[in-house]
Amino acid sequence: MRVLIIGAAGMVGRKLAERLAKDGALNGKTISHVTLADVVASQAPANAPFKTTSVAVDIADPSVAARLLADRPDVVFHLAAIVSGEAEQNFDKGYAINLDGTRYLFETIRQGHMASGGAWRPRVVFTSSIAVFGAPFHETIEDEFFSTPLTSYGTQKAIGELLLNDYTRKGFFDGVGIRLPTICVRPGKPNAAASGFFSNIIREPLVGIEAVLPVSDDVMHWHASPRSAVGFLLHAAAIDGASIGPRRCLTMPGLACTVGEQIEALRRVAGEKAVSLIRRVPDENIVRIVAGWPRKFNPKRALSLGFKAENSFDEIIRVHIFEEIEQNRA
Amino acid sequence: MRVLIIGAAGMVGRKLAERLAKDGALNGKTISHVTLADVVASQAPANAPFKTTSVAVDIADPSVAARLLADRPDVVFHLAAIVSGEAEQNFDKGYAINLDGTRYLFETIRQGHMASGGAWRPRVVFTSSIAVFGAPFHETIEDEFFSTPLTSYGTQKAIGELLLNDYTRKGFFDGVGIRLPTICVRPGKPNAAASGFFSNIIREPLVGIEAVLPVSDDVMHWHASPRSAVGFLLHAAAIDGASIGPRRCLTMPGLACTVGEQIEALRRVAGEKAVSLIRRVPDENIVRIVAGWPRKFNPKRALSLGFKAENSFDEIIRVHIFEEIEQNRA
Repeated sequence: MRVLIIGAAGMVGRKLAERLAKDGALNGKTISHVTLADVVASQAPANAPFKTTSVAVDIADPSVAARLLADRPDVVFHLAAIVSGEAEQNFDKGYAINLDGTRYLFETIRQGHMASGGAWRPRVVFTSSIAVFGAPFHETIEDEFFSTPLTSYGTQKAIGELLLNDYTRKGFFDGVGIRLPTICVRPGKPNAAASGFFSNIIREPLVGIEAVLPVSDDVMHWHASPRSAVGFLLHAAAIDGASIGPRRCLTMPGLACTVGEQIEALRRVAGEKAVSLIRRVPDENIVRIVAGWPRKFNPKRALSLGFKAENSFDEIIRVHIFEEIEQNRA
Repeated sequence: MRVLIIGAAGMVGRKLAERLAKDGALNGKTISHVTLADVVASQAPANAPFKTTSVAVDIADPSVAARLLADRPDVVFHLAAIVSGEAEQNFDKGYAINLDGTRYLFETIRQGHMASGGAWRPRVVFTSSIAVFGAPFHETIEDEFFSTPLTSYGTQKAIGELLLNDYTRKGFFDGVGIRLPTICVRPGKPNAAASGFFSNIIREPLVGIEAVLPVSDDVMHWHASPRSAVGFLLHAAAIDGASIGPRRCLTMPGLACTVGEQIEALRRVAGEKAVSLIRRVPDENIVRIVAGWPRKFNPKRALSLGFKAENSFDEIIRVHIFEEIEQNRA
């Protein structure tokens, strides 16, 4: 079993590679080789029981996909993307990476599939996003709600979904698209992303640092932990394609929870002292951006196909404490 | 007022050009020049009160869009497409024309918009299709139903819609996408399209020729006349963009009617003798294809924005008799 991870240097990509190294196998098959591709060199996971190759490449270069796919991997995880804020600022770059890069990848797989006489037909797991949805929403967003993104990033992800469906329908590869919730608690330092505060108000107080909350406590959002994100990817790699049918892109399960409920969970898990480190500094700009985001889904199809996320924000906080604080101490 | 029609040699494109020649104006402004572009030379409408230029070009050639847009038209009608059957047979060609051709057009307008310092921001009317929807459907398809096409053609149209929304949102042009119903009665000769019989069973008997009906009488479908299609295009060119909001692609109104109701309308309009020319020859292949097509919509948004179609199939037949039989005799 050969695996290719594109976007391997990102937070989810690294955690996926680490998990593969720990498991040594995917879908019950021993992994022989993992290629880690990203625009920068990816660090290979420690103690991997398989060969790893790290390549620094730009997927907007049309020749790159052929190089990445040369060993005909059995599973391709395509996680690489210019994120929302940057794709909005830099229109050309967003389309070059998120649309052209994805299309070069799919098209190169198709060429390889045909060159192999149909023998090579890899599973392709594509990370999409709830950014494919644009306001106004229904109170709860059902699986059949339409995609009218209000960002270039969301547009590019929605196009990737359509291409994935069509290439899969034609039998060129076996694709599964997964729309990730906002990943929380995001490890690392606070960043400039408008969504950063959802993680900041948990991660920083847990280690005794003040964090700024720019919105009101009643703001609801859709969360899953980094561990769930890796679980979604592994399940999407393993699931029987026939059980999915032609609609290959799925909203992943998550937890709809308000900022106030996040804070109550922090109080239960880490106590009053942690909560006291949250400083309320309203930011009208962030309030306005967040008001356009989806809040709550009913991801029936993904649940019925066996995808799983956390059931409480307490659990999301505990995943963070275990993976980012206790494991680092050990 | 300068107008560009891409796909001007097709049935709807020709009727649009004829209507513009008759009106001499669009949105209340006198037309000075119409460029008629298609892969073959388009015939200029007779007695046009404006200058016409006919160009035979391949929009899959990246350099073509700049040539078509050189005079900075105020309104661009983008009707050109590889049709469903051919796009399904020839994967590369469908993507080259329907996706790349559309993207070159949009991107060249964006470059021109920026080069003009924002002064040039044309209305772009893009013909999409109900093929963006894929079975299973709800009994009636609402405006917020998702796009999960089951053909490459539908995929390419759905991608065009997403691009049109994003380029419009960013202010590069002012786009309106219209999803056409099946156009009925299609003039001309019977063709190989799976949907051909919807028109054949009316058009042929009206002139005393036998026509084959390959499906049962209870098959329901979504129709509008060629005259309505031209009306949709003119209304989409004229409508105030602000009234549409960011969701720029609309399912056009139409008439949901069964084959049996079509035949009853033919009986009312043309009598028993015409109906007797319909020969029932079931074709399992066509039955299967048609079963995957949408049948009925509730196009609330388009209706509230003033788009209009026929209210009865009798009216659709009368439009055909007037435009294709009586006018040709006159």
